[in-house]
Amino acid sequence: MSQYQPPLSDIGFLLQHVFNFDQHAQQCGIELDGDTALAVADEAGKFARERIAPINRIGDTQGARWDDSKVTTAEGFREVYHAFREGGWNGLRFPEQFGGQGLCAVMSTVVEEMWHAASVSFALCPMLTNGAVEALLTAASDELKAAYLPKLVSGEWTGTMNLTEPGAGSDLAAVQSRAVRQPDGTYRVSGQKIFITYGEHDFADNIIHLVLARTPDAPKGVKGISLFVVPKFLVNVDGSCGKRNDVRCASIEHKLGIHGSPTAVMLFGEQDGAVGYLVGEENRGLEYMFIMMNEARFAVGLQGLSISDRAYQHALAYAQERVQGRAVGEDGSQGKTIIRHPDVRRMLLSMKSKVEAMRALAIYVAMQKDIAHSGAVDAEARAHAQSRMELLIPVLKGWFTESAQGVTYDALQVFGGMGFIEETGAAQFYRDARILTIYEGTTAIQANDLVGRKTLRDKGNAALSLIDTIERDIRALRQLDHATANALSVRLADGCDALRKAVRWLQEQNESNPRAAYAGAAPYLELWGTVCGGWMHVRRLQAAVRDLVQPELLTATALSAQFYAEHILVGAPALGETIRTGSASLLEFPDTAWRL
Amino acid sequence: MSQYQPPLSDIGFLLQHVFNFDQHAQQCGIELDGDTALAVADEAGKFARERIAPINRIGDTQGARWDDSKVTTAEGFREVYHAFREGGWNGLRFPEQFGGQGLCAVMSTVVEEMWHAASVSFALCPMLTNGAVEALLTAASDELKAAYLPKLVSGEWTGTMNLTEPGAGSDLAAVQSRAVRQPDGTYRVSGQKIFITYGEHDFADNIIHLVLARTPDAPKGVKGISLFVVPKFLVNVDGSCGKRNDVRCASIEHKLGIHGSPTAVMLFGEQDGAVGYLVGEENRGLEYMFIMMNEARFAVGLQGLSISDRAYQHALAYAQERVQGRAVGEDGSQGKTIIRHPDVRRMLLSMKSKVEAMRALAIYVAMQKDIAHSGAVDAEARAHAQSRMELLIPVLKGWFTESAQGVTYDALQVFGGMGFIEETGAAQFYRDARILTIYEGTTAIQANDLVGRKTLRDKGNAALSLIDTIERDIRALRQLDHATANALSVRLADGCDALRKAVRWLQEQNESNPRAAYAGAAPYLELWGTVCGGWMHVRRLQAAVRDLVQPELLTATALSAQFYAEHILVGAPALGETIRTGSASLLEFPDTAWRL
Repeated sequence: MSQYQPPLSDIGFLLQHVFNFDQHAQQCGIELDGDTALAVADEAGKFARERIAPINRIGDTQGARWDDSKVTTAEGFREVYHAFREGGWNGLRFPEQFGGQGLCAVMSTVVEEMWHAASVSFALCPMLTNGAVEALLTAASDELKAAYLPKLVSGEWTGTMNLTEPGAGSDLAAVQSRAVRQPDGTYRVSGQKIFITYGEHDFADNIIHLVLARTPDAPKGVKGISLFVVPKFLVNVDGSCGKRNDVRCASIEHKLGIHGSPTAVMLFGEQDGAVGYLVGEENRGLEYMFIMMNEARFAVGLQGLSISDRAYQHALAYAQERVQGRAVGEDGSQGKTIIRHPDVRRMLLSMKSKVEAMRALAIYVAMQKDIAHSGAVDAEARAHAQSRMELLIPVLKGWFTESAQGVTYDALQVFGGMGFIEETGAAQFYRDARILTIYEGTTAIQANDLVGRKTLRDKGNAALSLIDTIERDIRALRQLDHATANALSVRLADGCDALRKAVRWLQEQNESNPRAAYAGAAPYLELWGTVCGGWMHVRRLQAAVRDLVQPELLTATALSAQFYAEHILVGAPALGETIRTGSASLLEFPDTAWRL
Repeated sequence: MSQYQPPLSDIGFLLQHVFNFDQHAQQCGIELDGDTALAVADEAGKFARERIAPINRIGDTQGARWDDSKVTTAEGFREVYHAFREGGWNGLRFPEQFGGQGLCAVMSTVVEEMWHAASVSFALCPMLTNGAVEALLTAASDELKAAYLPKLVSGEWTGTMNLTEPGAGSDLAAVQSRAVRQPDGTYRVSGQKIFITYGEHDFADNIIHLVLARTPDAPKGVKGISLFVVPKFLVNVDGSCGKRNDVRCASIEHKLGIHGSPTAVMLFGEQDGAVGYLVGEENRGLEYMFIMMNEARFAVGLQGLSISDRAYQHALAYAQERVQGRAVGEDGSQGKTIIRHPDVRRMLLSMKSKVEAMRALAIYVAMQKDIAHSGAVDAEARAHAQSRMELLIPVLKGWFTESAQGVTYDALQVFGGMGFIEETGAAQFYRDARILTIYEGTTAIQANDLVGRKTLRDKGNAALSLIDTIERDIRALRQLDHATANALSVRLADGCDALRKAVRWLQEQNESNPRAAYAGAAPYLELWGTVCGGWMHVRRLQAAVRDLVQPELLTATALSAQFYAEHILVGAPALGETIRTGSASLLEFPDTAWRL
């Protein structure tokens, strides 16, 4: 198994040259300079490589085990979690008021990429705690915040999100869990929740469940869902853990991947109801969830980048050491390992160019988040950043995670027959990646969100504004005296053209035939991702040329961009045609004819 | 778990309407009429559904187990194999002279699709026996044939192919196993072979290993490889099994998928050498292997079709029963299951249209094989069919198996979160499919074969001839008065244009820069597959219109073709551009810069 190498040089290139972190920090009033940011990344990288990465495979082979409502995680997971917590890594992005370190979105993005790259199964636990913290920060009373946030921020306790039920997967309108108000203001919560990540484990003294449920007189559908805090152990006035609450883990799932992460079936209120505390107001649960959802979807998108980079590194190490066959057109003087075979190079550069596009886009979106949340920025700029971020969240979640499928597929392929053997490790990345396009909203859900809430609702304004920005960057790129710039700018301009036509087409359809618009949702999402990836290569190339980086880095940056243009971006016009022409066949297909 | 439904109606449509099996049989002197062919398919379908399909999941969960050189297959595998053998299914395609039934290639294709769809893990055993039989038929002496063929054809014994070694994967020039000739004319074989499918198991009294090895004075490289028969038990003069040979299974692999199929590490000659019998002449082993390789690659391609259809059926059954959410633009009167969601329909029609394209192309290639091998056909037509078949084998192997990845991916996606749970069954298809683009030559090997031996070697003649045929069919399609015909013919003509340009470009590169030609090999293979798939939809649509099939079948055929044109074939021009422009970046990328 190759060792995980934190991508510190690329992070440095992005923060220093591509995105000018110092300027970004100044704009947003972030008290952190570029050098300190890199020092933090370096420390995080060390922890990811030395502590988290080594348990990833153990998590896969041992898995988490369930026995009589208790879950034991794989060897080393508990110890590494404690070291993680004690290192202060859990609270990195949260307000100092609750014991966090208040790091900006850019830095938490950079750092969290490395946690997930080292082990998605492990990093899911802090990721879910983050979700719970965000929920409480968003909507909880000061009392609830004071009771739960410090220990969630420190990582002493962990958090979970309880949305899904057997009959309510993507459709939260179907949630049936019940919450009945008691005279003392608390609620009694009952119901079954499934697919609860880290719903039970052995890392922490308490687990704080955030649960969607309905009060008895709630309106039907999504407008009748409320959000509750349901701790595993009730919390005493002094903050210590008290009585066991009426909630237990009935089983954990046997999954294709992320075996190290327990996925629990949770039973609430089997006896007299689990004690729950309302977050915010009744019937506004879905609204609170939507605010958090941006965070969660961003985090899962990031997992797509992480596992892609890890799989790429693993395949690269093998390609650089495996000797097999003679590469066509060579006599061996260029090297005898399989990296000299053209198709191996094709797969490696495909992985690399996607990883680079994703990492840059993740940081770009994180910058928008910093701007949107900054008190130092004027309201108009904040609103603009917020709208751009919201447009890009489904792209990031959907496109990164779909791209991760292709990258982990190629990585396994580089190993040939060895890739199919579990001990090689490539298969684990492939299996682990498979959940990413499903949880926190499938790709279809992201695509529908992108079409409906993010494109059509504001009459295409956010979408067209981003296309304008990209086209401005294309014009700047054309000023560069660089051979690759032309190929890239032509392909990217075609991509923008396809996007403009798609936005117009979606708007037309939405009035006459909304089903047609949504039939094109998945290729529309893919088109956005493909174009944004090319755009990020423009930014990279511009920075490399402008800042006179070392010659080999410039060459690598240009060739990666060129590859992306000629192998990936080249497909953009066809995606545009599919969006505009491809709906009739699938909508009109007779439901009695699927098995003819 | 949904039940496997043999695709008898589609097979009937193809044999009766699209390919006119009766006429094909007459042309080739095959003594089988269409009705009997369908009756055989029906019987095979019954066996596949009732006997093989039920053990597929057991094979996955239990796997094959190794203990002290012995391998025990999963529950039911042995019994079903015996029933398979006793039903006479094993010898279906082999000469009557050795106890087979002499069925034509079209029929064995139709039947073998169903074995693999029911269980790839199970069907691999007869598939490998087929390989051994082909090897012996191709090159063995009458003595060897008489000793081994009857029991291999009946299935009383099974066969294996021993090519790969730890240092010799795709590159057979690196084979190091040794074979030393003895005074009695036999050889003593020694060496380690890996990835040997059904190298050891409990189905049969004897296992006949076909082994590649070198004699002591053999030339270096591929010209010094010979092929040997090495039986597990030596065969007595009366045909009974005698002494144990010096060969044993040292372990079996822990794999991502096809757990039911034991993948063995085989040790030959640990003591005084395994007794082996030369097949044909010394140093011609690779040549014999190449003859068989067409068979083996065709069979693996077929597995891509099989597992795709099975995964499609599984997803379809779920989509037709799972209720979740309200489909956009509908009030529920069209049905409340998820099949009404546009993106679910998109995935289902993508799967369906690919399966249909693959099944038709498999039969088309099988027809070429029948023609090439028929004594009733003149030499020129035989040669033409042989050349077309050889051109299409890497396309069939490469494109079917790559398509199976997307189809099994989509099938799992239709299940949402449930798809990631192993018990649902979709994950098994996804895992099992992953080997298909690796064994019997990776996709890169197929693509290089397509570029080198199949396109460049004959100056593009076979390739251009097939493009001519497709373009003739496009012209015929344009005569049809049917709305879909136009969309399909435009896209397909673009695809043919991209292919022509690609062939010309490859020829140019081959002289000046062969590495560039091979850098485009994978997209070139994908382009061929994509275009041939569209071509098969043309054939289907023509037949459906011409033969006035029932209206719903006509609608379904047309919409599936239209979907294929607008979602898949639409990508052909971009593949062409990638082939022609995409090589420089990956060839020029500096090997010191992969981790910058």
